[in-house]
Amino acid sequence: MPTPIKLSSRNDYESFLEKFDTFLLDCDGVLWHGNTLLPGVREVLALLRQKGKRLIFVTNNSAKSRASYSLKFKKLNIEVNENEIFCSAYIAAYYLKNILKFPKEKKIYVIGESGITEELDLEGIRSCGSSEDDDGKDFDFNDIHPDPTVGAVLCGLDTRINYKKIAKAFNYLYSNPDCLFLLTNDDSTIPYNGTLYPGTGSLVAPLIKSLNRNPDAVMGKPNKPMMDCITNEFQLDVERTCMIGDRLNTDIQFGINGKLKTLLVLTGISKEHDILIKNAPIVPDYYLPSLGDFSELCK
Amino acid sequence: MPTPIKLSSRNDYESFLEKFDTFLLDCDGVLWHGNTLLPGVREVLALLRQKGKRLIFVTNNSAKSRASYSLKFKKLNIEVNENEIFCSAYIAAYYLKNILKFPKEKKIYVIGESGITEELDLEGIRSCGSSEDDDGKDFDFNDIHPDPTVGAVLCGLDTRINYKKIAKAFNYLYSNPDCLFLLTNDDSTIPYNGTLYPGTGSLVAPLIKSLNRNPDAVMGKPNKPMMDCITNEFQLDVERTCMIGDRLNTDIQFGINGKLKTLLVLTGISKEHDILIKNAPIVPDYYLPSLGDFSELCK
Repeated sequence: MPTPIKLSSRNDYESFLEKFDTFLLDCDGVLWHGNTLLPGVREVLALLRQKGKRLIFVTNNSAKSRASYSLKFKKLNIEVNENEIFCSAYIAAYYLKNILKFPKEKKIYVIGESGITEELDLEGIRSCGSSEDDDGKDFDFNDIHPDPTVGAVLCGLDTRINYKKIAKAFNYLYSNPDCLFLLTNDDSTIPYNGTLYPGTGSLVAPLIKSLNRNPDAVMGKPNKPMMDCITNEFQLDVERTCMIGDRLNTDIQFGINGKLKTLLVLTGISKEHDILIKNAPIVPDYYLPSLGDFSELCK
Repeated sequence: MPTPIKLSSRNDYESFLEKFDTFLLDCDGVLWHGNTLLPGVREVLALLRQKGKRLIFVTNNSAKSRASYSLKFKKLNIEVNENEIFCSAYIAAYYLKNILKFPKEKKIYVIGESGITEELDLEGIRSCGSSEDDDGKDFDFNDIHPDPTVGAVLCGLDTRINYKKIAKAFNYLYSNPDCLFLLTNDDSTIPYNGTLYPGTGSLVAPLIKSLNRNPDAVMGKPNKPMMDCITNEFQLDVERTCMIGDRLNTDIQFGINGKLKTLLVLTGISKEHDILIKNAPIVPDYYLPSLGDFSELCK
């Protein structure tokens, strides 16, 4: 495994940027923390556009649709085109429609937030669950019934998860072996306010354990559906494309799986130590303390 | 592995009962299904008492305290003494007080129902969580803070589980490596109305996955704390004690671990096929279609 190259001077930055036409960028931990833009990021993204680079934003976060992300970029005063945003909720809807050719007469039971149901709606895929089952009522086993019109259970992060949602999803999958089991992503944790919280990959663990069944497909990084969807919409010259992210086991692995070059920034989950230890399992081609460091070139 | 002996005649029943002084009985799937007593069970329990047998009721269900179970037996018109009931909520409180000597100045964060908090109260152990966090409010990451006074997270079945409870439990365990992680039981499913639902062992999977940490102790069958608590209160002559249950991986394994004889009844989870297949991993000494079959001896 080659040692990753640390970018640390104006010269490094310039020669790095010259190598690529396209940058795939993770969002949380790279561009921002929650709603706070990281220093220099706005200038760096503007610089990249000015240099004619193609930008593609790639996030496992399933809470927001493309439209909501677009709004978030605009609020942060960052230029974006909605079709540059690949969020896991969009990938799920795209995958169901175009890859699985999900039958029109069936519907999806969703554990997750509005990003998922909005994207499904846009693709004309019927869904149920999600906020319908946030009813705050006491759980009653007698409310749970098999439903053969549910053709898939799709799970993303849901901060309103409850036993009713888990029991319904279990019941649909348990009573119908043909019902698909899909995840927007399998991140075990999510970062927030400098600490971690359980992520989609953890919230779905009760289903995996009680069904003794793994998901049929996971949409987000480092998995294939995300890359398939991007390469279907954009022609990527892999030699001249770089994936930029803060998490080795999702972002960097995703770049490696797609045979892209990779740049780790240290403003999120993974630390310099993680890539410099002996036998580090996942190593990027390049690393940099912060994406904002490229703003040196704006001076 | 010897073939299990099927009890099928009056003679079989009589000679079986003569072999034992003490019976450990699982409840759901053996005595009742939910609130419905199984046929003949009341007569059989009365017969066993009349023959001078000692009865001990052993259940992994964490929703009820000893006092609530006692009330349930009474409603079903079955004689019981509260100290004959070993439910996992009681074992948890017993274990915390007598085995772990849980410090008085610390408290327990509970994911679970009232059975657990009632038993902790009776042992003078402070708790928080449980129904306090069923508040129906939208989850807010800013409401979650480390609390060094939480000395253990104790999880049982909670049909009011929500993201707040999972995030709080995660935070207490993640921010404090000395905080204990305890389960009332690790049953992956629970039976109800002829089907299954996710059980405690599944509901706790988000914590195991996001923390990448296994629980420090599990109270219920087939684990040791349940047996330690019983043998501390009753002298058991293992040669003359039989564990009766409907589930191989909890009840029968519990009997085997305790070097007791075991009887599987087929009114619950495990089926005759499970014990007669080649290389069955867990096999009881005896089996019987239903506990009520012993009522033949009442005629």
